[in-house]
Amino acid sequence: MKEAVDINCDMGEAFGRWRIGDAHDEELISLISSANIATGFHAGDPNLMDETVRMAAAHGVGVGAHPGYNDLQGFGRRKINGTSRELVNDLVYQVGALREFARRYGVPVQHVKPHGALYMELAANPDLSQIFIQYMRTAAPNMFVFCMDGSATCLAAEEAGQPVVREFYADRDYGDTGWIVFTRDAGRPDPKAIARKVVRACTEGIVRTVNGADIPIAFDSICFHSDTLGALDIVRYMREALIAEGIRIAPVSQILNSDAARRSHEQA
Amino acid sequence: MKEAVDINCDMGEAFGRWRIGDAHDEELISLISSANIATGFHAGDPNLMDETVRMAAAHGVGVGAHPGYNDLQGFGRRKINGTSRELVNDLVYQVGALREFARRYGVPVQHVKPHGALYMELAANPDLSQIFIQYMRTAAPNMFVFCMDGSATCLAAEEAGQPVVREFYADRDYGDTGWIVFTRDAGRPDPKAIARKVVRACTEGIVRTVNGADIPIAFDSICFHSDTLGALDIVRYMREALIAEGIRIAPVSQILNSDAARRSHEQA
Amino acid sequence: MKEAVDINCDMGEAFGRWRIGDAHDEELISLISSANIATGFHAGDPNLMDETVRMAAAHGVGVGAHPGYNDLQGFGRRKINGTSRELVNDLVYQVGALREFARRYGVPVQHVKPHGALYMELAANPDLSQIFIQYMRTAAPNMFVFCMDGSATCLAAEEAGQPVVREFYADRDYGDTGWIVFTRDAGRPDPKAIARKVVRACTEGIVRTVNGADIPIAFDSICFHSDTLGALDIVRYMREALIAEGIRIAPVSQILNSDAARRSHEQA
Amino acid sequence: MKEAVDINCDMGEAFGRWRIGDAHDEELISLISSANIATGFHAGDPNLMDETVRMAAAHGVGVGAHPGYNDLQGFGRRKINGTSRELVNDLVYQVGALREFARRYGVPVQHVKPHGALYMELAANPDLSQIFIQYMRTAAPNMFVFCMDGSATCLAAEEAGQPVVREFYADRDYGDTGWIVFTRDAGRPDPKAIARKVVRACTEGIVRTVNGADIPIAFDSICFHSDTLGALDIVRYMREALIAEGIRIAPVSQILNSDAARRSHEQA
Repeated sequence: MKEAVDINCDMGEAFGRWRIGDAHDEELISLISSANIATGFHAGDPNLMDETVRMAAAHGVGVGAHPGYNDLQGFGRRKINGTSRELVNDLVYQVGALREFARRYGVPVQHVKPHGALYMELAANPDLSQIFIQYMRTAAPNMFVFCMDGSATCLAAEEAGQPVVREFYADRDYGDTGWIVFTRDAGRPDPKAIARKVVRACTEGIVRTVNGADIPIAFDSICFHSDTLGALDIVRYMREALIAEGIRIAPVSQILNSDAARRSHEQA
Repeated sequence: MKEAVDINCDMGEAFGRWRIGDAHDEELISLISSANIATGFHAGDPNLMDETVRMAAAHGVGVGAHPGYNDLQGFGRRKINGTSRELVNDLVYQVGALREFARRYGVPVQHVKPHGALYMELAANPDLSQIFIQYMRTAAPNMFVFCMDGSATCLAAEEAGQPVVREFYADRDYGDTGWIVFTRDAGRPDPKAIARKVVRACTEGIVRTVNGADIPIAFDSICFHSDTLGALDIVRYMREALIAEGIRIAPVSQILNSDAARRSHEQA
Repeated sequence: MKEAVDINCDMGEAFGRWRIGDAHDEELISLISSANIATGFHAGDPNLMDETVRMAAAHGVGVGAHPGYNDLQGFGRRKINGTSRELVNDLVYQVGALREFARRYGVPVQHVKPHGALYMELAANPDLSQIFIQYMRTAAPNMFVFCMDGSATCLAAEEAGQPVVREFYADRDYGDTGWIVFTRDAGRPDPKAIARKVVRACTEGIVRTVNGADIPIAFDSICFHSDTLGALDIVRYMREALIAEGIRIAPVSQILNSDAARRSHEQA
Repeated sequence: MKEAVDINCDMGEAFGRWRIGDAHDEELISLISSANIATGFHAGDPNLMDETVRMAAAHGVGVGAHPGYNDLQGFGRRKINGTSRELVNDLVYQVGALREFARRYGVPVQHVKPHGALYMELAANPDLSQIFIQYMRTAAPNMFVFCMDGSATCLAAEEAGQPVVREFYADRDYGDTGWIVFTRDAGRPDPKAIARKVVRACTEGIVRTVNGADIPIAFDSICFHSDTLGALDIVRYMREALIAEGIRIAPVSQILNSDAARRSHEQA
C-alpha cells in the first residue's frame, strides 16, 4: 500500500506550429506531478521547451528531460542504428539543453526518461545503458532515471548507484513477464478501468496481464501518454480514485530521496 | 601594454563525417587559450562536441559555447528572421547542450560567443541583445560574453553587469569606425603581417584601418578563424611574436576575473 | 464577369505525426479545384506528399507544388537570407520532389506557388524572381506560376512568357495599392462576408480595401488558407455563392490554357 | 570478355560548406562514365546537386540519383527502422528532386543507386525492394537500377521487368558467396592491385575472394568510392588498364539498352 505516488506524462511534444493528440499541456499540467519534456530531437523545440519548463515550474511539477532519437519525422519511434557512444552523446546534448531552461526558471531537472524507441532500445541494450548511466554518474549523479523494472537500464543504474524510478504504465497492457505489450494503436481506453487498474497496483502491488494472470508489480511513478485518446479523462479519473484511497500525488523527488532510490542490485 | 592576452578560435565546426578548412583542431588546440565550440545548429554535432570539450579540458583551454542560427546548410552565415524570443531560446538550448558536455569533463563553460550572422545580428540589435543578456544574468551570471567593443551586445552586458570580453580580430580588416570590414573571402593572409598587427594592438592599443588611419582599439581576447587559409601558421607566428614581447597567453578566466569584467557602462 | 474560376488552398501542411489548424485535407479536397501541396521544407513530408497527391488526383484537383524556406520550425514564415541562386535551387529541388509523386499517380504538376515568406520575398525581389522564372522556362515551360498581380514574380513571368495565374486572397484584407495587408493573426473571419467579397470580385472585378476604397482587381484563382479558423465554412459558403451566380469552379488548367496565360508585359 | 564497361562513383557528397575525403569531384568527373549524385538526405544539398548535375552533363557522364536514409549526421550509414512505405516515399522524393536538376540541364536521369545502409537494406529486404521497384515501373520504367547480383533488389527488378545494372566493387573485398565483405575502414588500398582485379573481372568474369577462392562474377558497371583513400589513383590506374585491354569505358545507357537490361528472372 503506497502512501504517495508520482504521476508522470510526456509534455511539450508539439513542434513549431504543429500540435499532436487531443489533450492540451495547459490542462494536463495541473493534474500530473512530473513532466517528461521533449528536448527537440523527436519533438519539441527551444520555444516550447522554454514554455513547458516555465509552466511545470509554476505548478510545482517535477521537470524531466525526455530525449529521443534524432528523427522528427518519425517522432522518435523508429530505431536508428547508431553506436552506443553516438546515442549517449545525443542524450547528453538533450539533457543539457533542457537543464539550461530549468536553470532559467530556477528549478532542477528532477529526472530523465528517454522517449519511444530509444527507451525500448536502452531497456534491451546493456552496453548502451551502461554508457548512459556512466554519463549520469559523472554529470547528473542525483537525477532520477525513469525505467522499467528489470530492464537493462534499471540494472545498470542499480549497479552504478544511480537513483532509479520504476514506472507503472496506466494506459498500456502488461504481458505475463511484467513487460508492456507493444501496440501501435491503443484505441480509446476506458478511463474508469484504468483508474481501477492503477488503484489496485498502488494498494495491492498487482496487475492483471493480457492473459488474465495476476502478477506482482513494483513501481514509484505512474505513466500515461498525453497522446492516448481521452488522456485528460484518464488522468482525472485516476487522480480522483487515488485520492479517494488516501494516496497522495507528488513528484518523485518529494516521495523518494535520491539515496533511497539508489537501490542495490541485490535488493532489487 | 598588456601583460597577458587570450587567443580564441572556433573549434568543432565539422559535422558528421564532413570536415572544413585546412587546419585541424588537434593541432590548433595546443596553440590557443580559449575555444569557441560549435553547438550543433550551424555546425558541430554531439559526438564532436564531446570530443572537442574533452580535448579543450585536457589542454587547459577555456571552453566556450559557440551557438549559431539553426541552419547547417548555410553554416550559420544566413540571417534567419526569427523573433528575439525565438533566437534567445535557440541560444539557451545550445549553451545548455555544451554545458552538459563540459560537466561531463569536469570543467566550467568559461564563455559564450555567438557565431557568424547571429553574432552580427546581436551586435546590431539592442532588443535581441537585452533578452540574451537577461537570460545570462539569470542562468549564467559569471559566464563571459565575447563581443565587439561598442556593439549592442557589449552595451547590454555592461548595463546589466554581465562580464564582457571584447575581441580583437587578427585575420579581419578594420574600418575607421573600429568595426571589422565584412568580406566573404579573406584569401590567404600573411601570417607575419598579422603577427605584427596583433603585437601592435597588444602593446600600443592601436590598429591601422583599411583606409590607413591608426585608431585606438580595446580588447581582452584575440580572435582568429580556423577556416582562414593558413590558420595554423597565423596562430603560430602570432603566439611566437606575443611571447617574444613577454606577453603571456592564457584563457580570459585566468586574466580577468568575472567582477573585473563587469565593466560599468560609464567606464566603458 | 467570370464564367469560371479556380479555388486553391494549401494542403499537406502537416508533418510527421503532427497536425495543424482545424480543417482537414480530406474534407477540403472535395471543395477546391487546385491544391498547393507542401514539399517538405516548411511543412509536409514524403509520406504526406504521396497521400495528398493521390487524393488530389482522385478528386480531379489540380496538383501544385508549394515550396518554402527550409525551416520546419518556423513553418516557412521566417525569411532566410540566402542568395538568389541558393533559394532557386531550393525551389528546383522541391518542385522536382513533388513532380515525382505526381508522376507516380499519372497526373501533371499544374502549378507552383511558393509559400509564406518565400512567396513574399519573390514578390519583392526582381533578381530572385528572374532566376526562378528562368528555371521554369527551361524545365517547366507550361507550369503555371501563382503570384500576385503586379509582383516582381508576375512581371518576370510575363516578360519571359511563363504562364501566370494571379490570385485573389479571399481571407485576407486588401490595402489601397491592391496588395494584401500583412497580419499575423487573422482571427476567425465571417464566411458570409468572404463569400460576398469573392462574388463581387468575380462579377464586378472590384474589391473594397481596409480604407473603404473600391479598387479593381484582376485574378484567375481564389486563394484561402486551410489554417484560417473556420476554413471549411469559408470554402463552403464561397462555393455555394459562386455556383449560385452561375460561376463554374475548375482547376486553372481547365479554364486558361498555358498560351492564354502567357500574358505579355504590355497587356498586363 | 567485355567490349565496354561503365565506371560509376558517388559524387556530390559534400554538404553546405563541408567537404569529405581526399578526392575532388572536379577531377573525378572526367575519369568516370556514370555519377551517383547524392540527393540531400544523407549528403548533398540543392546547390551541390545543381553543380554536380551540370558538371556531369557537360562531361557526358550518366546522371544517377543516389538517395539515402534521412540522416545527414550519420551519412546514411545507420539503418533507420522505417516501414517499407515510408522508405520508398523517401526514395521517390529524392529521385524526383534530382530529376528536376537533370531536366534543367537537358539530360535524363540514367539510373538510381541507393546509398549506404539503404542499399544494403534493399538488398536484404524483398518487401522493400518490391515496393521500390513498383514505383519505378510506374514512374521511371526505363531508369536503370544499380544493385548487387542476387540481391532482393535485383530479383524484384528482374521479375517486374525493370532494367538492371549489376555492379562490381573495385575497392571492396569479396566473400565466397559473391557478396562484398563489410568493412568500416578500407584503409588505403593498392591502386595497381585494384586495376588487375578489375581487368580480370572484365576479361575472365572472375574475382578472387578474401579466402583465396576464384568465383564467377557478373556485372555491367564498376563501382569505386570517392571517399576511399587514394580514389583518384584508383580510377586512373583502372581506366588505363581497361583501355590497354581494349575495353571501352562508357555510361551504361550507351552499352546496354533498357530492353536488354530487362533480364528475366529465369535468365538471371
